[in-house]
Amino acid sequence: MLNVILADSELELIPKKLWNHPVIKKFVKKRKKDVRYTLLDSSYHHKAMKNLKENYRRGRPDIVHFCLINALESILNKENKLRIYVHTRNNEVIYVKPETRIPRHYNRFVGLMEKLFKNKKIPEGLNLLKLENKSLKELINEISPSKLFVMHPNGKYLSPAKVGEKLSKYEDPCVIVGGFPHGDFKSKIEGTKISIYPKELTAWTVLNEIIINYENKIKKKKEGKI
Amino acid sequence: MLNVILADSELELIPKKLWNHPVIKKFVKKRKKDVRYTLLDSSYHHKAMKNLKENYRRGRPDIVHFCLINALESILNKENKLRIYVHTRNNEVIYVKPETRIPRHYNRFVGLMEKLFKNKKIPEGLNLLKLENKSLKELINEISPSKLFVMHPNGKYLSPAKVGEKLSKYEDPCVIVGGFPHGDFKSKIEGTKISIYPKELTAWTVLNEIIINYENKIKKKKEGKI
Repeated sequence: MLNVILADSELELIPKKLWNHPVIKKFVKKRKKDVRYTLLDSSYHHKAMKNLKENYRRGRPDIVHFCLINALESILNKENKLRIYVHTRNNEVIYVKPETRIPRHYNRFVGLMEKLFKNKKIPEGLNLLKLENKSLKELINEISPSKLFVMHPNGKYLSPAKVGEKLSKYEDPCVIVGGFPHGDFKSKIEGTKISIYPKELTAWTVLNEIIINYENKIKKKKEGKI
Repeated sequence: MLNVILADSELELIPKKLWNHPVIKKFVKKRKKDVRYTLLDSSYHHKAMKNLKENYRRGRPDIVHFCLINALESILNKENKLRIYVHTRNNEVIYVKPETRIPRHYNRFVGLMEKLFKNKKIPEGLNLLKLENKSLKELINEISPSKLFVMHPNGKYLSPAKVGEKLSKYEDPCVIVGGFPHGDFKSKIEGTKISIYPKELTAWTVLNEIIINYENKIKKKKEGKI
């Protein structure tokens, strides 16, 4: 089983101090949303985010959307060998059951996340998605993986295929991938740092490489070829 | 160089006979769009599509969006070894320059596609995206690949890693992936049919597997390991 944590993801509700900004007020009214449960989205709220700390990286539900859509539709997940967790900048963790069908449509995905921030569980009873207050460290302790890796531009270079090979040597390894567009992790990061490419890659590109190369290697192992 | 064609993609403008449907009229007015250049989107136009032929598969710009976002951000594309083409149900072909930055935000992507259907080239001069009337057969003739493969659920089973290996044996192979949610290709398909998984996969899952496994193999080849 491969555990992947999308860490410090830029997924959050609109901070309270922006609620009265004209851009936010107009947005919420037009979409008939509840301002208390509306996701921050830099594509729409750029002007309102002008004085927000770390505004250059915040409000990116699209990154979480692409990552979940890719992860949950992967062969590895269909073989029930993947667990993906979304950890946010505000130290919340979203638990995602492998059978969850994430809406393909971005606006529907945003609506779903807003409902999750409000109700903490979706759907009530099945709990395909569940949100809890939890730090990255607490989540890692909970998973207690046999080995922890962090995808990091300053890490030791390994080709994606080699990363798959390395991961496949452990029982239930865990890989941390940054769920933000630029810069470094906000959380304190432990684990072996690995880089798969000399230039910056998007979170979903790194995720795809890890998932597919891990799947290749455990498949080969199962077939007795390694 | 790997050529990938996303074929029979469900990307089209709203058909003329739906322009006067109340659902469409309301949608166009609310978004201040020009009905002549508005993309069909099953998430919004479901009710208006009730009597539309093949409505169960049409109006899926999200599939093209995910595929382009994954392909263009891949390591293979950053190494300039990928060309991706979008062929649509109405026999149009979108040429995508590898350096194109596709909007991450779905609504922005839709706006861009609408502009492309109107102007045929974006941006004027640079032509990062170019739309031409062309059938799948004409496009294949133009690419004239050394070998043509078609990803197809009825094809011969090969593991994703084996597909990468097979592709890497040809100079400029071409792979066709269906850009639709269900059913079969509408265009007449030639080429060697391959299946990588016994169950249905999304277009972007297949695309990711092909791109990453091809990249692994040509990398190994370059390093003299095959």
